[in-house]
Amino acid sequence: MTHPIADTVEVLAFDIFGTVVDWHGSIVREMQALHPAVDGDAFALAWRAGYQPAMRRVMAGELGWTLIDDLHRMILDGILPQFGLAPLDEAQRQHLNRVWHRLHAWPDAVAGLTRLKARYTITTLSNGNLGLLTNMAKHARLPWDCVLSAEVFRAYKPDPATYLGVARVFDLKPAQVMLVAAHHDDLAGARACGLQTAYIERPLEFGAGHVKDVSPQPGNTLHASSLTALADQLGC
Amino acid sequence: MTHPIADTVEVLAFDIFGTVVDWHGSIVREMQALHPAVDGDAFALAWRAGYQPAMRRVMAGELGWTLIDDLHRMILDGILPQFGLAPLDEAQRQHLNRVWHRLHAWPDAVAGLTRLKARYTITTLSNGNLGLLTNMAKHARLPWDCVLSAEVFRAYKPDPATYLGVARVFDLKPAQVMLVAAHHDDLAGARACGLQTAYIERPLEFGAGHVKDVSPQPGNTLHASSLTALADQLGC
Repeated sequence: MTHPIADTVEVLAFDIFGTVVDWHGSIVREMQALHPAVDGDAFALAWRAGYQPAMRRVMAGELGWTLIDDLHRMILDGILPQFGLAPLDEAQRQHLNRVWHRLHAWPDAVAGLTRLKARYTITTLSNGNLGLLTNMAKHARLPWDCVLSAEVFRAYKPDPATYLGVARVFDLKPAQVMLVAAHHDDLAGARACGLQTAYIERPLEFGAGHVKDVSPQPGNTLHASSLTALADQLGC
Repeated sequence: MTHPIADTVEVLAFDIFGTVVDWHGSIVREMQALHPAVDGDAFALAWRAGYQPAMRRVMAGELGWTLIDDLHRMILDGILPQFGLAPLDEAQRQHLNRVWHRLHAWPDAVAGLTRLKARYTITTLSNGNLGLLTNMAKHARLPWDCVLSAEVFRAYKPDPATYLGVARVFDLKPAQVMLVAAHHDDLAGARACGLQTAYIERPLEFGAGHVKDVSPQPGNTLHASSLTALADQLGC
Protein backbone atom coordinates (compact mmCIF):
# COMPACT_ATOMS: atom_id res chain seq x y z
CA MET A 1 0.00 0.00 0.00
CA THR A 2 1.41 3.36 -0.98
CA HIS A 3 2.15 5.67 1.97
CA PRO A 4 0.31 9.03 1.78
CA ILE A 5 3.64 10.92 1.94
CA ALA A 6 4.45 9.65 -1.56
CA ASP A 7 2.69 12.58 -3.21
CA THR A 8 4.32 15.27 -1.03
CA VAL A 9 7.93 14.26 -1.56
CA GLU A 10 9.77 15.31 -4.74
CA VAL A 11 13.41 14.59 -3.95
CA LEU A 12 14.94 11.59 -2.20
CA ALA A 13 18.40 12.29 -0.76
CA PHE A 14 20.44 9.22 0.13
CA ASP A 15 23.07 8.64 2.72
CA ILE A 16 25.69 6.43 1.04
CA PHE A 17 28.17 4.60 3.32
CA GLY A 18 26.24 1.75 4.89
CA THR A 19 22.88 2.76 3.40
CA VAL A 20 23.52 2.22 -0.35
CA VAL A 21 26.94 0.56 -0.32
CA ASP A 22 28.47 -2.09 1.97
CA TRP A 23 31.70 -0.47 3.18
CA HIS A 24 32.52 -3.22 5.68
CA GLY A 25 32.10 -6.16 3.32
CA SER A 26 33.86 -4.35 0.47
CA ILE A 27 36.92 -3.53 2.58
CA VAL A 28 37.08 -7.06 4.02
CA ARG A 29 37.06 -8.48 0.48
CA GLU A 30 39.78 -6.12 -0.75
CA MET A 31 41.95 -6.88 2.27
CA GLN A 32 41.55 -10.63 1.70
CA ALA A 33 42.86 -10.10 -1.86
CA LEU A 34 45.60 -7.54 -1.11
CA HIS A 35 46.77 -8.38 2.43
CA PRO A 36 45.33 -11.78 3.40
CA ALA A 37 47.32 -11.99 6.64
CA VAL A 38 45.46 -8.99 8.08
CA ASP A 39 42.19 -9.33 10.04
CA GLY A 40 39.99 -7.54 7.45
CA ASP A 41 37.05 -7.22 9.81
CA ALA A 42 39.11 -5.46 12.50
CA PHE A 43 40.84 -3.36 9.85
CA ALA A 44 37.56 -2.14 8.30
CA LEU A 45 36.13 -1.30 11.72
CA ALA A 46 39.28 0.57 12.79
CA TRP A 47 39.32 2.62 9.60
CA ARG A 48 35.66 3.53 9.90
CA ALA A 49 35.99 4.28 13.63
CA GLY A 50 38.28 7.19 12.79
CA TYR A 51 35.70 8.78 10.51
CA GLN A 52 33.40 10.64 12.91
CA PRO A 53 36.26 11.94 15.13
CA ALA A 54 38.10 13.24 12.03
CA MET A 55 35.01 15.12 10.80
CA ARG A 56 34.49 16.54 14.29
CA ARG A 57 38.03 17.97 14.20
CA VAL A 58 37.18 19.77 10.95
CA MET A 59 33.82 21.07 12.19
CA ALA A 60 35.48 22.28 15.42
CA GLY A 61 37.92 24.30 13.33
CA GLU A 62 40.91 22.25 14.50
CA LEU A 63 41.52 21.22 10.87
CA GLY A 64 40.67 23.34 7.82
CA TRP A 65 38.03 22.13 5.36
CA THR A 66 39.12 18.65 4.28
CA LEU A 67 37.71 16.21 1.72
CA ILE A 68 36.79 12.75 2.93
CA ASP A 69 39.43 11.24 0.63
CA ASP A 70 42.03 13.12 2.66
CA LEU A 71 40.46 12.24 6.02
CA HIS A 72 40.35 8.58 4.98
CA ARG A 73 44.05 8.80 4.11
CA MET A 74 44.99 10.40 7.45
CA ILE A 75 43.11 7.67 9.33
CA LEU A 76 44.63 4.97 7.12
CA ASP A 77 48.17 6.20 7.76
CA GLY A 78 47.38 6.15 11.47
CA ILE A 79 46.12 2.54 11.62
CA LEU A 80 48.52 0.82 9.19
CA PRO A 81 51.24 0.17 11.82
CA GLN A 82 48.88 -1.61 14.20
CA PHE A 83 48.01 -4.06 11.40
CA GLY A 84 51.66 -4.68 10.43
CA LEU A 85 51.27 -2.63 7.24
CA ALA A 86 53.66 0.23 8.04
CA PRO A 87 55.92 -0.83 5.11
CA LEU A 88 53.23 0.02 2.49
CA ASP A 89 54.66 2.54 0.03
CA GLU A 90 52.92 5.67 -1.28
CA ALA A 91 51.40 3.97 -4.35
CA GLN A 92 50.03 1.10 -2.24
CA ARG A 93 48.52 3.54 0.26
CA GLN A 94 46.92 5.58 -2.51
CA HIS A 95 45.46 2.45 -4.07
CA LEU A 96 44.13 1.16 -0.76
CA ASN A 97 42.62 4.55 0.12
CA ARG A 98 40.66 4.49 -3.14
CA VAL A 99 38.79 1.37 -1.95
CA TRP A 100 36.09 3.86 -0.83
CA HIS A 101 35.59 4.69 -4.54
CA ARG A 102 35.12 0.97 -5.29
CA LEU A 103 32.60 -0.03 -2.61
CA HIS A 104 29.97 -2.54 -3.64
CA ALA A 105 26.27 -1.73 -3.55
CA TRP A 106 23.95 -3.70 -1.30
CA PRO A 107 22.14 -6.29 -3.46
CA ASP A 108 18.83 -4.34 -3.50
CA ALA A 109 20.35 -0.91 -4.20
CA VAL A 110 20.47 -0.66 -8.01
CA ALA A 111 17.01 -2.18 -8.45
CA GLY A 112 15.52 0.00 -5.70
CA LEU A 113 17.12 3.23 -6.94
CA THR A 114 16.06 2.53 -10.51
CA ARG A 115 12.44 2.15 -9.42
CA LEU A 116 12.54 5.24 -7.18
CA LYS A 117 14.16 7.30 -9.95
CA ALA A 118 11.14 6.76 -12.19
CA ARG A 119 9.02 8.84 -9.81
CA TYR A 120 11.44 11.00 -7.81
CA THR A 121 14.63 12.95 -8.27
CA ILE A 122 17.27 10.86 -6.53
CA THR A 123 20.46 12.43 -5.22
CA THR A 124 23.30 11.50 -2.94
CA LEU A 125 23.69 13.45 0.30
CA SER A 126 26.91 12.09 1.68
CA ASN A 127 29.92 13.36 3.58
CA GLY A 128 31.96 11.63 0.85
CA ASN A 129 33.45 14.03 -1.70
CA LEU A 130 32.07 14.53 -5.21
CA GLY A 131 34.85 12.64 -7.00
CA LEU A 132 34.52 9.69 -4.63
CA LEU A 133 30.73 9.56 -5.07
CA THR A 134 30.94 9.86 -8.86
CA ASN A 135 33.59 7.16 -9.20
CA MET A 136 31.58 4.92 -6.87
CA ALA A 137 28.40 5.45 -8.89
CA LYS A 138 30.19 4.52 -12.12
CA HIS A 139 31.73 1.44 -10.51
CA ALA A 140 28.54 0.23 -8.80
CA ARG A 141 26.15 1.50 -11.52
CA LEU A 142 24.14 3.74 -9.17
CA PRO A 143 21.78 5.81 -11.36
CA TRP A 144 21.81 9.19 -9.55
CA ASP A 145 20.06 12.20 -11.03
CA CYS A 146 22.41 14.47 -9.07
CA VAL A 147 25.48 14.09 -6.87
CA LEU A 148 25.38 16.27 -3.75
CA SER A 149 27.97 16.14 -1.03
CA ALA A 150 29.27 17.87 2.06
CA GLU A 151 31.81 19.25 -0.43
CA VAL A 152 29.09 21.38 -2.05
CA PHE A 153 27.86 22.82 1.25
CA ARG A 154 31.28 22.89 2.97
CA ALA A 155 29.75 21.26 6.03
CA TYR A 156 29.39 17.64 7.07
CA LYS A 157 26.15 16.01 8.11
CA PRO A 158 24.51 16.44 10.59
CA ASP A 159 25.09 20.18 10.04
CA PRO A 160 21.72 21.74 9.04
CA ALA A 161 23.43 23.41 6.05
CA THR A 162 23.56 20.00 4.35
CA TYR A 163 19.89 19.00 4.76
CA LEU A 164 18.56 22.50 4.08
CA GLY A 165 21.02 22.76 1.19
CA VAL A 166 19.22 19.98 -0.67
CA ALA A 167 15.90 21.80 -0.36
CA ARG A 168 17.52 25.04 -1.51
CA VAL A 169 19.23 23.43 -4.53
CA PHE A 170 15.89 22.12 -5.75
CA ASP A 171 13.88 25.19 -4.67
CA LEU A 172 11.62 23.06 -2.46
CA LYS A 173 10.27 23.19 1.06
CA PRO A 174 12.16 20.90 3.47
CA ALA A 175 9.04 18.71 3.79
CA GLN A 176 9.26 17.94 0.04
CA VAL A 177 12.66 16.29 0.58
CA MET A 178 13.14 12.87 2.22
CA LEU A 179 16.46 11.71 3.65
CA VAL A 180 17.00 7.96 3.24
CA ALA A 181 19.58 6.54 5.65
CA ALA A 182 20.53 3.55 7.77
CA HIS A 183 21.54 5.77 10.70
CA HIS A 184 19.11 7.26 13.19
CA ASP A 185 21.41 10.21 14.08
CA ASP A 186 21.56 11.30 10.43
CA LEU A 187 17.76 11.03 10.15
CA ALA A 188 17.30 12.99 13.39
CA GLY A 189 19.40 15.81 11.94
CA ALA A 190 17.27 15.88 8.81
CA ARG A 191 14.02 15.72 10.81
CA ALA A 192 15.09 18.71 12.93
CA CYS A 193 15.34 20.65 9.63
CA GLY A 194 11.84 19.64 8.56
CA LEU A 195 12.75 16.89 6.08
CA GLN A 196 10.86 13.63 5.80
CA THR A 197 12.90 10.57 6.83
CA ALA A 198 13.14 6.92 5.78
CA TYR A 199 15.17 4.46 7.84
CA ILE A 200 16.68 1.52 5.96
CA GLU A 201 17.58 -1.65 7.88
CA ARG A 202 21.20 -2.67 7.33
CA PRO A 203 21.79 -5.19 10.13
CA LEU A 204 25.10 -6.31 8.57
CA GLU A 205 26.59 -2.82 8.13
CA PHE A 206 29.41 -3.70 10.56
CA GLY A 207 29.71 -7.32 9.40
CA ALA A 208 28.13 -10.59 10.47
CA GLY A 209 30.14 -10.56 13.70
CA HIS A 210 28.61 -7.29 14.86
CA VAL A 211 24.91 -7.36 13.97
CA LYS A 212 23.33 -3.92 14.31
CA ASP A 213 20.04 -3.20 16.09
CA VAL A 214 17.67 -2.07 13.34
CA SER A 215 14.57 -1.51 15.49
CA PRO A 216 12.20 1.18 14.27
CA GLN A 217 12.30 4.56 15.98
CA PRO A 218 9.00 6.45 16.14
CA GLY A 219 10.18 9.76 14.64
CA ASN A 220 10.81 8.46 11.14
CA THR A 221 8.26 8.88 8.36
CA LEU A 222 9.07 5.47 6.87
CA HIS A 223 10.94 2.33 7.93
CA ALA A 224 11.96 -0.20 5.26
CA SER A 225 14.01 -3.38 5.13
CA SER A 226 15.67 -2.41 1.82
CA LEU A 227 15.54 0.12 -1.02
CA THR A 228 13.19 -2.12 -2.98
CA ALA A 229 10.90 -2.25 0.07
CA LEU A 230 11.06 1.57 0.19
CA ALA A 231 10.04 1.63 -3.49
CA ASP A 232 7.06 -0.57 -2.57
CA GLN A 233 6.03 1.83 0.23
CA LEU A 234 6.28 4.83 -2.10
CA GLY A 235 4.29 3.12 -4.86
CA CYS A 236 7.19 2.98 -7.33
CA MET B 1 40.42 7.11 -36.50
CA THR B 2 40.75 7.63 -32.76
CA HIS B 3 42.59 10.82 -31.79
CA PRO B 4 45.71 10.18 -29.64
CA ILE B 5 44.33 12.41 -26.85
CA ALA B 6 41.65 9.77 -26.18
CA ASP B 7 43.93 7.90 -23.75
CA THR B 8 45.01 11.01 -21.79
CA VAL B 9 41.57 12.37 -21.00
CA GLU B 10 39.53 10.89 -18.12
CA VAL B 11 36.73 13.42 -17.64
CA LEU B 12 34.63 15.23 -20.25
CA ALA B 13 33.00 18.40 -18.91
CA PHE B 14 30.15 19.77 -21.01
CA ASP B 15 28.89 23.26 -21.54
CA ILE B 16 25.10 22.94 -21.68
CA PHE B 17 23.13 25.90 -23.15
CA GLY B 18 23.67 25.70 -26.91
CA THR B 19 26.11 22.79 -26.74
CA VAL B 20 23.91 19.97 -25.40
CA VAL B 21 20.46 21.60 -25.49
CA ASP B 22 18.78 23.90 -28.02
CA TRP B 23 17.70 26.90 -25.92
CA HIS B 24 16.58 29.00 -28.90
CA GLY B 25 14.38 26.35 -30.54
CA SER B 26 12.94 25.23 -27.18
CA ILE B 27 11.93 28.76 -26.18
CA VAL B 28 10.45 29.47 -29.62
CA ARG B 29 8.33 26.31 -29.35
CA GLU B 30 7.10 27.15 -25.84
CA MET B 31 6.24 30.72 -26.89
CA GLN B 32 4.29 29.42 -29.88
CA ALA B 33 2.23 27.30 -27.50
CA LEU B 34 1.86 29.80 -24.63
CA HIS B 35 1.88 33.23 -26.32
CA PRO B 36 1.50 32.70 -30.09
CA ALA B 37 1.13 36.43 -30.83
CA VAL B 38 4.71 37.07 -29.65
CA ASP B 39 7.73 36.85 -32.00
CA GLY B 40 9.34 33.82 -30.30
CA ASP B 41 12.64 34.22 -32.14
CA ALA B 42 13.08 37.82 -31.00
CA PHE B 43 11.91 36.91 -27.50
CA ALA B 44 14.40 34.05 -27.14
CA LEU B 45 17.26 36.22 -28.41
CA ALA B 46 16.33 39.11 -26.08
CA TRP B 47 16.18 36.82 -23.06
CA ARG B 48 19.52 35.21 -23.84
CA ALA B 49 21.11 38.58 -24.61
CA GLY B 50 20.67 39.59 -20.98
CA TYR B 51 22.58 36.55 -19.73
CA GLN B 52 26.24 37.58 -20.07
CA PRO B 53 25.66 41.15 -18.80
CA ALA B 54 23.80 39.80 -15.75
CA MET B 55 26.64 37.41 -14.89
CA ARG B 56 29.16 40.22 -15.34
CA ARG B 57 27.26 42.30 -12.76
CA VAL B 58 27.61 39.43 -10.27
CA MET B 59 31.29 38.83 -11.00
CA ALA B 60 31.97 42.58 -10.69
CA GLY B 61 30.44 42.52 -7.21
CA GLU B 62 27.55 44.79 -8.23
CA LEU B 63 25.14 41.95 -7.35
CA GLY B 64 25.76 39.29 -4.69
CA TRP B 65 26.09 35.65 -5.69
CA THR B 66 22.96 34.81 -7.70
CA LEU B 67 21.70 31.55 -9.20
CA ILE B 68 20.98 31.51 -12.93
CA ASP B 69 17.30 30.80 -12.20
CA ASP B 70 17.18 34.19 -10.48
CA LEU B 71 19.16 35.98 -13.18
CA HIS B 72 16.84 34.49 -15.83
CA ARG B 73 13.88 35.81 -13.87
CA MET B 74 15.36 39.33 -13.54
CA ILE B 75 16.00 39.44 -17.29
CA LEU B 76 12.54 38.03 -18.03
CA ASP B 77 10.81 40.66 -15.90
CA GLY B 78 12.80 43.29 -17.78
CA ILE B 79 11.85 42.17 -21.31
CA LEU B 80 8.19 41.19 -20.81
CA PRO B 81 6.82 44.75 -21.37
CA GLN B 82 8.53 45.16 -24.76
CA PHE B 83 6.77 41.97 -25.96
CA GLY B 84 3.38 43.05 -24.66
CA LEU B 85 3.53 40.54 -21.79
CA ALA B 86 3.58 42.92 -18.83
CA PRO B 87 0.19 41.56 -17.64
CA LEU B 88 1.65 38.08 -16.91
CA ASP B 89 1.01 37.21 -13.26
CA GLU B 90 3.48 35.66 -10.80
CA ALA B 91 2.49 32.05 -11.54
CA GLN B 92 2.79 32.61 -15.31
CA ARG B 93 6.20 34.24 -14.89
CA GLN B 94 7.42 31.39 -12.69
CA HIS B 95 6.21 28.83 -15.20
CA LEU B 96 7.80 30.64 -18.14
CA ASN B 97 11.10 31.08 -16.28
CA ARG B 98 11.26 27.32 -15.75
CA VAL B 99 11.44 26.80 -19.54
CA TRP B 100 15.21 26.65 -18.98
CA HIS B 101 14.61 23.44 -16.99
CA ARG B 102 12.66 21.98 -19.93
CA LEU B 103 15.03 22.69 -22.82
CA HIS B 104 15.22 20.01 -25.50
CA ALA B 105 18.46 18.20 -26.29
CA TRP B 106 20.00 18.48 -29.75
CA PRO B 107 19.10 15.32 -31.69
CA ASP B 108 22.61 13.80 -31.36
CA ALA B 109 23.06 14.58 -27.63
CA VAL B 110 21.64 11.54 -25.82
CA ALA B 111 23.23 9.05 -28.24
CA GLY B 112 26.57 10.86 -28.14
CA LEU B 113 26.65 11.20 -24.34
CA THR B 114 25.68 7.56 -23.87
CA ARG B 115 28.61 6.43 -26.04
CA LEU B 116 31.05 8.84 -24.37
CA LYS B 117 29.89 7.75 -20.89
CA ALA B 118 30.97 4.17 -21.60
CA ARG B 119 34.64 5.30 -21.69
CA TYR B 120 34.75 8.59 -19.78
CA THR B 121 33.26 10.25 -16.75
CA ILE B 122 30.82 12.81 -18.17
CA THR B 123 29.81 15.86 -16.16
CA THR B 124 28.08 19.14 -16.78
CA LEU B 125 30.11 22.33 -16.34
CA SER B 126 27.50 25.02 -16.79
CA ASN B 127 26.68 28.41 -15.36
CA GLY B 128 23.19 26.99 -14.87
CA ASN B 129 22.37 26.06 -11.27
CA LEU B 130 22.30 22.51 -9.94
CA GLY B 131 18.51 22.26 -9.72
CA LEU B 132 18.06 23.56 -13.24
CA LEU B 133 20.67 21.12 -14.62
CA THR B 134 19.21 18.15 -12.73
CA ASN B 135 15.63 18.89 -13.80
CA MET B 136 16.81 19.38 -17.40
CA ALA B 137 18.69 16.08 -17.35
CA LYS B 138 15.62 14.22 -16.11
CA HIS B 139 13.41 15.90 -18.70
CA ALA B 140 15.80 15.39 -21.64
CA ARG B 141 17.22 12.05 -20.40
CA LEU B 142 20.83 13.26 -20.29
CA PRO B 143 22.85 10.48 -18.60
CA TRP B 144 25.37 12.51 -16.54
CA ASP B 145 27.73 10.81 -14.12
CA CYS B 146 27.96 14.05 -12.15
CA VAL B 147 26.32 17.48 -12.17
CA LEU B 148 28.80 20.35 -11.69
CA SER B 149 27.85 23.99 -11.92
CA ALA B 150 29.03 27.50 -11.25
CA GLU B 151 26.91 27.05 -8.10
CA VAL B 152 29.47 24.56 -6.73
CA PHE B 153 32.45 26.84 -7.39
CA ARG B 154 30.60 30.12 -6.71
CA ALA B 155 32.05 31.57 -9.90
CA TYR B 156 30.75 31.66 -13.45
CA LYS B 157 32.70 30.53 -16.49
CA PRO B 158 35.13 31.75 -17.77
CA ASP B 159 36.48 32.17 -14.23
CA PRO B 160 39.46 29.76 -13.85
CA ALA B 161 37.94 28.47 -10.58
CA THR B 162 35.34 26.61 -12.66
CA TYR B 163 37.70 24.80 -15.07
CA LEU B 164 40.30 24.06 -12.41
CA GLY B 165 37.49 23.08 -10.07
CA VAL B 166 36.59 20.12 -12.29
CA ALA B 167 40.19 18.86 -12.20
CA ARG B 168 40.29 19.29 -8.42
CA VAL B 169 36.97 17.48 -7.85
CA PHE B 170 38.27 14.44 -9.73
CA ASP B 171 41.87 14.72 -8.39
CA LEU B 172 43.23 14.99 -11.96
CA LYS B 173 45.68 17.20 -13.80
CA PRO B 174 43.95 19.85 -15.96
CA ALA B 175 45.22 18.08 -19.11
CA GLN B 176 43.19 14.99 -18.12
CA VAL B 177 39.97 17.00 -18.39
CA MET B 178 38.39 18.09 -21.69
CA LEU B 179 35.85 20.89 -21.94
CA VAL B 180 33.25 20.27 -24.67
CA ALA B 181 31.50 23.45 -25.83
CA ALA B 182 30.00 25.26 -28.80
CA HIS B 183 31.60 28.57 -27.77
CA HIS B 184 35.20 29.55 -28.50
CA ASP B 185 35.43 31.97 -25.54
CA ASP B 186 34.48 29.21 -23.09
CA LEU B 187 37.05 26.88 -24.67
CA ALA B 188 39.71 29.61 -24.57
CA GLY B 189 39.12 30.01 -20.82
CA ALA B 190 39.52 26.26 -20.31
CA ARG B 191 42.64 26.11 -22.51
CA ALA B 192 44.26 28.90 -20.50
CA CYS B 193 43.86 26.62 -17.44
CA GLY B 194 45.50 23.67 -19.18
CA LEU B 195 42.37 21.69 -20.09
CA GLN B 196 41.88 19.91 -23.42
CA THR B 197 39.12 21.41 -25.56
CA ALA B 198 36.56 20.12 -28.07
CA TYR B 199 34.51 22.54 -30.17
CA ILE B 200 31.06 21.35 -31.22
CA GLU B 201 29.42 22.93 -34.29
CA ARG B 202 25.96 24.28 -33.49
CA PRO B 203 25.24 26.53 -36.50
CA LEU B 204 21.57 26.85 -35.50
CA GLU B 205 22.18 27.84 -31.87
CA PHE B 206 20.53 31.25 -32.52
CA GLY B 207 17.90 29.89 -34.91
CA ALA B 208 17.73 29.38 -38.67
CA GLY B 209 17.48 33.14 -39.18
CA HIS B 210 20.85 33.79 -37.53
CA VAL B 211 23.23 31.04 -38.67
CA LYS B 212 26.40 31.01 -36.57
CA ASP B 213 29.93 30.79 -37.99
CA VAL B 214 31.26 27.42 -36.82
CA SER B 215 34.69 27.60 -38.45
CA PRO B 216 37.45 25.71 -36.64
CA GLN B 217 39.89 27.70 -34.53
CA PRO B 218 43.41 26.32 -34.31
CA GLY B 219 43.76 26.27 -30.50
CA ASN B 220 41.21 23.52 -29.88
CA THR B 221 42.25 19.91 -29.38
CA LEU B 222 39.22 18.57 -31.28
CA HIS B 223 36.53 19.97 -33.59
CA ALA B 224 33.37 17.94 -34.19
CA SER B 225 30.07 18.44 -35.97
CA SER B 226 28.07 16.77 -33.16
CA LEU B 227 28.44 14.76 -29.96
CA THR B 228 28.22 11.50 -31.91
CA ALA B 229 31.05 12.76 -34.17
CA LEU B 230 33.02 13.54 -30.99
CA ALA B 231 32.41 9.96 -29.83
CA ASP B 232 33.80 8.76 -33.17
CA GLN B 233 36.94 10.87 -32.73
CA LEU B 234 37.48 9.56 -29.20
CA GLY B 235 36.98 5.94 -30.26
CA CYS B 236 33.80 5.46 -28.22
